[in-house]
Amino acid sequence: VSTFRNVVLLSGGVGGARFAHGLAQVVDAERLTLIVNTGDDLVHWGLYVCPDLDTVMYTLAGRADEARGWGLRDETFGVLDGMRAFGAPDWFALGDRDLATHLVRSEALARGRSLSDVTQQLCAALGVRTRVLPMCDTPRRTLIESCDHGLLAFQEWLVKLRAPRVKAVHFEGADTPTAAALAALDAAELIVIGPSNPYVSIDPILSLSGVRERVASKPTIALSPIVHGRAVKGPLAEMLRELAGSAPGAGAIAVHYGELLSGLVVERGDEASVRALPVLGTNTVMGGSTDRARLAREVLQFAEGLK
Amino acid sequence: VSTFRNVVLLSGGVGGARFAHGLAQVVDAERLTLIVNTGDDLVHWGLYVCPDLDTVMYTLAGRADEARGWGLRDETFGVLDGMRAFGAPDWFALGDRDLATHLVRSEALARGRSLSDVTQQLCAALGVRTRVLPMCDTPRRTLIESCDHGLLAFQEWLVKLRAPRVKAVHFEGADTPTAAALAALDAAELIVIGPSNPYVSIDPILSLSGVRERVASKPTIALSPIVHGRAVKGPLAEMLRELAGSAPGAGAIAVHYGELLSGLVVERGDEASVRALPVLGTNTVMGGSTDRARLAREVLQFAEGLK
Repeated sequence: VSTFRNVVLLSGGVGGARFAHGLAQVVDAERLTLIVNTGDDLVHWGLYVCPDLDTVMYTLAGRADEARGWGLRDETFGVLDGMRAFGAPDWFALGDRDLATHLVRSEALARGRSLSDVTQQLCAALGVRTRVLPMCDTPRRTLIESCDHGLLAFQEWLVKLRAPRVKAVHFEGADTPTAAALAALDAAELIVIGPSNPYVSIDPILSLSGVRERVASKPTIALSPIVHGRAVKGPLAEMLRELAGSAPGAGAIAVHYGELLSGLVVERGDEASVRALPVLGTNTVMGGSTDRARLAREVLQFAEGLK
Repeated sequence: VSTFRNVVLLSGGVGGARFAHGLAQVVDAERLTLIVNTGDDLVHWGLYVCPDLDTVMYTLAGRADEARGWGLRDETFGVLDGMRAFGAPDWFALGDRDLATHLVRSEALARGRSLSDVTQQLCAALGVRTRVLPMCDTPRRTLIESCDHGLLAFQEWLVKLRAPRVKAVHFEGADTPTAAALAALDAAELIVIGPSNPYVSIDPILSLSGVRERVASKPTIALSPIVHGRAVKGPLAEMLRELAGSAPGAGAIAVHYGELLSGLVVERGDEASVRALPVLGTNTVMGGSTDRARLAREVLQFAEGLK
């Protein structure tokens, strides 16, 4: 359906993962690369957990628990039971089969292998043919400066405290993207910014050395994660009000990404909020895999039209 | 029942753990110390696993799966399923609730806490009041020099290869016992060597600096792990033939421990195989908790009689 030889998707967790699932159905695997946020990775129960990478891998593998919004389907929680009995923190739940991912990854990292390497291994084992790249192989952490609870690690803010009001978002650690991510951006004929939270899912990727200018130099389409004034998932609507002083809508997303964008895909009815940018209004709330493929096709067609 | 102010049990896994469970019922917690073999500890799936310590803790907590012979009762195996799907080694199975133990322990060790410390924490969480000491806080590994497969890590020999023929047993790593173990031996008025494999469960403890001479200086009773020419569990009968050239029986156990022993408790009918040592013949195959307490009482009574 698309004449773009190389397409790169910048992605966070759920929204980006579902759109990735759509793209993977309509773009050949060798022409598609996903660059995934790792700013909200955490060490939990001593294991290295990559929530966004895992959501992307599990969604592409058709094994994500989409009703729950995280982890694997048909999961059990025996380890969590055991951890609770030991008084270990249980605010970040990990299922038993999911835990195997974190064990394999943690062991590989401890042996000195890179996150890119082990992600490739995990994808292969899960039957995911799409190229999935972590944005970094070195730790880069998204920190939330909250209004009422000081500086918080990302998952503590999001999961433990349920996203209290935000004053600012900070990134900590080396701003070095993986060489593979930079090469994919260099080769890209189209960059798509998935319908993920711009502040905490996409900005961490854009904040890396060399990424923003590469994205700016290519045709780039974003998908607005806002539907009828609310985020499909997560606290984005509140963040747009608090951090940008904007009403949550596609217009605020357009302003946020500014000159990076060649076009914006928005929920039908939200077109008018966007100024001075080509806009495609459609149904952006993705259902099952057919619906995801439909949206991916529409986005590629829209990008073709902007050539 | 006993006038011994301080009793120390040297223990391996299942047999020692069951006898420990008996002793814990008849000796006050503040007068009983278990020193447990850690020579067969292993790092598995990146986690630090202590098979003998865990069997002892779980057995004392009344939560061991005694039919299976390892791990916890009412266990699930979701992580194992997940690890299999990733092609990780599955010859050493860990249950989901059991895995919580290894996660808590591994994380604590990674933070620089000692194995003694984290064992105390795990025991407290499991409701185990008996003092359980690992023999070492530093790595000390039992290696098996096999006749046909070269030098093997202990669990590889026992679990993966199902105990092929043994040429020799070696110990690797610093021979430093914990200070608490030495202090317990110094304070002991009676030392009991549990019905564990002398070569691979008890010798690792005796091989530590300062342990053998302390055991030799105190009243010491061993329980023979041989019943009707066979080990209740494990490959001891074969090892006695291969390593000592002895028929498997209490006599071979008596010869193995030699001058360390003040007396030996043997399966009824096996008394005659023991020379020049006080012997108690009784039913040494332990059933449930009442039967374990019965055996513990008989052993203490026998030791009283040798005073």
